[in-house]
Amino acid sequence: MTDADARFGLDRRVTLPGPFALVGGQALPELTIAYETYGQFDGSNAILICHALTGDQYVASPHPITGKPGWWTRLVGPGKPVDPARHFIICANVLGGCMGSSGPSNINPATGRPHGMAFPVITIRDMVNAQAALLDHLGIERLHAVVGGSMGGMQALDWAVAHGARVGRVVAIATAARHSAQNIAFHEVGRQAIMADPAWAGGHYASDVPPAAGLAVARMAAHITYLSEEGLTEKFGRRLQDRAAVGFGFDADFQVESYLRHQGLSFTQRFDANAYLYITRAMDYFDLAEPFGGNLAAAFAGCPSRFCLISFTSDWLYPTAESRRIVRALHGAGCPVSFVELESPHGHDAFLLDAPEMNRVVAGFLAQ
Amino acid sequence: MTDADARFGLDRRVTLPGPFALVGGQALPELTIAYETYGQFDGSNAILICHALTGDQYVASPHPITGKPGWWTRLVGPGKPVDPARHFIICANVLGGCMGSSGPSNINPATGRPHGMAFPVITIRDMVNAQAALLDHLGIERLHAVVGGSMGGMQALDWAVAHGARVGRVVAIATAARHSAQNIAFHEVGRQAIMADPAWAGGHYASDVPPAAGLAVARMAAHITYLSEEGLTEKFGRRLQDRAAVGFGFDADFQVESYLRHQGLSFTQRFDANAYLYITRAMDYFDLAEPFGGNLAAAFAGCPSRFCLISFTSDWLYPTAESRRIVRALHGAGCPVSFVELESPHGHDAFLLDAPEMNRVVAGFLAQ
Repeated sequence: MTDADARFGLDRRVTLPGPFALVGGQALPELTIAYETYGQFDGSNAILICHALTGDQYVASPHPITGKPGWWTRLVGPGKPVDPARHFIICANVLGGCMGSSGPSNINPATGRPHGMAFPVITIRDMVNAQAALLDHLGIERLHAVVGGSMGGMQALDWAVAHGARVGRVVAIATAARHSAQNIAFHEVGRQAIMADPAWAGGHYASDVPPAAGLAVARMAAHITYLSEEGLTEKFGRRLQDRAAVGFGFDADFQVESYLRHQGLSFTQRFDANAYLYITRAMDYFDLAEPFGGNLAAAFAGCPSRFCLISFTSDWLYPTAESRRIVRALHGAGCPVSFVELESPHGHDAFLLDAPEMNRVVAGFLAQ
Repeated sequence: MTDADARFGLDRRVTLPGPFALVGGQALPELTIAYETYGQFDGSNAILICHALTGDQYVASPHPITGKPGWWTRLVGPGKPVDPARHFIICANVLGGCMGSSGPSNINPATGRPHGMAFPVITIRDMVNAQAALLDHLGIERLHAVVGGSMGGMQALDWAVAHGARVGRVVAIATAARHSAQNIAFHEVGRQAIMADPAWAGGHYASDVPPAAGLAVARMAAHITYLSEEGLTEKFGRRLQDRAAVGFGFDADFQVESYLRHQGLSFTQRFDANAYLYITRAMDYFDLAEPFGGNLAAAFAGCPSRFCLISFTSDWLYPTAESRRIVRALHGAGCPVSFVELESPHGHDAFLLDAPEMNRVVAGFLAQ
């Protein structure tokens, strides 16, 4: 790495020569990875942060479109458990994403247009292999830790299964080792909402006329699953929006309606609909135990990594039972694991919010 | 009533002279109610069945479009707890519905076109008042019982509050006394999916070119809330659809995807999109305690009816906690109430499925 590479929060991208083989049987002729790094690499202090479905590489630096702070500045940053003063932190846009890494929204040099649905379907393993290729490029043989929540946690777990020798510690938060029927069902609703939008046009939309209405509906449905019933009641209840009584119409009467509409709309300004299709598909395909006849312990067999799992009481998307299943499998495989279920009313999103206990657990685990 | 009125499973409709005043302040110039009756009225054996969001008057007779058996033949029919041999059973399409009662899909005589979004927004109370007008027309002063599940349960509870003197018994199953923030949120996703469909056209679509894609997405999202995570896992898990391995594409790989797509598509063949908007709105507005400063017991004060509440363990749409809240309020109001939570893995839909315990509870309560 050059000195320039080690500067804080650069907007970086590398295109690696292919072919890059995919689980589905196809190969990418070349692999582009957009990533951010923070801190200085000292040979043993690299921590890979894996982002969730709608996350990106801007874990601790402002988002270039929204201008908002990084999505995990509560955990990653100066004075935080993952600290650029001590760690060399890497976060890459996932393969299939829309923030610069190879994906359906990237321009296909052969046609001069976005790949769209001609992009091959990818898996969590492909995302992980792309990150491994990035580490090779950066000269990082071994990670001190890989850390992720939600889909990021799936990648972290898959790192241990696919590249265990390269990973000292795995921190998997609010996640699962497989997508459940209900998880798949919610994703399918989102995909159908996008595909039902005539602007989607079979995926051949121009970037300035995206299927925004469909993508907004997909985001709204998904967003409900990120919150808890308890949290929604606490935050909104049946409170009305700027009025003394219901309006007997179809405007947003209730605050929760207005909130959801805003979530849907703002999402369309920073995310690509085809990327949403591809990434949700990768998540639905995720089942670590499947290649091992359903035996999850067998997936982890021989893995030398140490594990830390964290779940949240009100997370019904990836509930504690799923983390317990992983913990049992890790015990079965003889892998060292610590697990904690944290009390929170905030549902799945709890891992992105202020969670001092989560920070203490992660800090302690990384320092072991 | 004439003899003809008392025949089994007739396809009946009555238009009552207006004005029919609505809670929202507007009035209908006349009120059309489509309904079915079963059995003979003997002066004291009338039971009103109230249907759920996507139900209709065909509680115990074949649906005229799908040809499927009535939606509650497990509870209503010969030899069942609600039995035409003993009871005079009435079930009316709700106000705002699309099976013949006044609603947005009805033709406006003034324009020769469907009312569409010019139809006034209605409430659960309006539905109940329309049913009361139908009973007046049929010469039924007092009901032996009103019975409903889900939105039907909301109507049953509201009957007790609005017309308690006319109701001997109230059976409210898998229901709530108000829509929660999460309930509203899911409905809002469905409405936005419909309104995002260009075919919706502000509600001015012709009946042969409906916003089917949007309505299908709305139904898919709602359908997930009718089932439990446990039930979905048991029924589908991650089982694949007619193939040995995932297809690395966007066809329905998983059985749960295929099932949901079918649910969405078949729904559009029997339901009107605008009616879906109006009825979900009525449900979202439902909060029995709101006119009483949030005091639900005050809503039931002085009501002479006896109550039977039933909830199901895996129902997360209208969970047991909501039934318990109603029971506490009824206790507070001094109303006799029996309550049972039944074990079921089938989520909210449990009340429509084979539920022998539910049948025993309802039969016993109606015979008291």
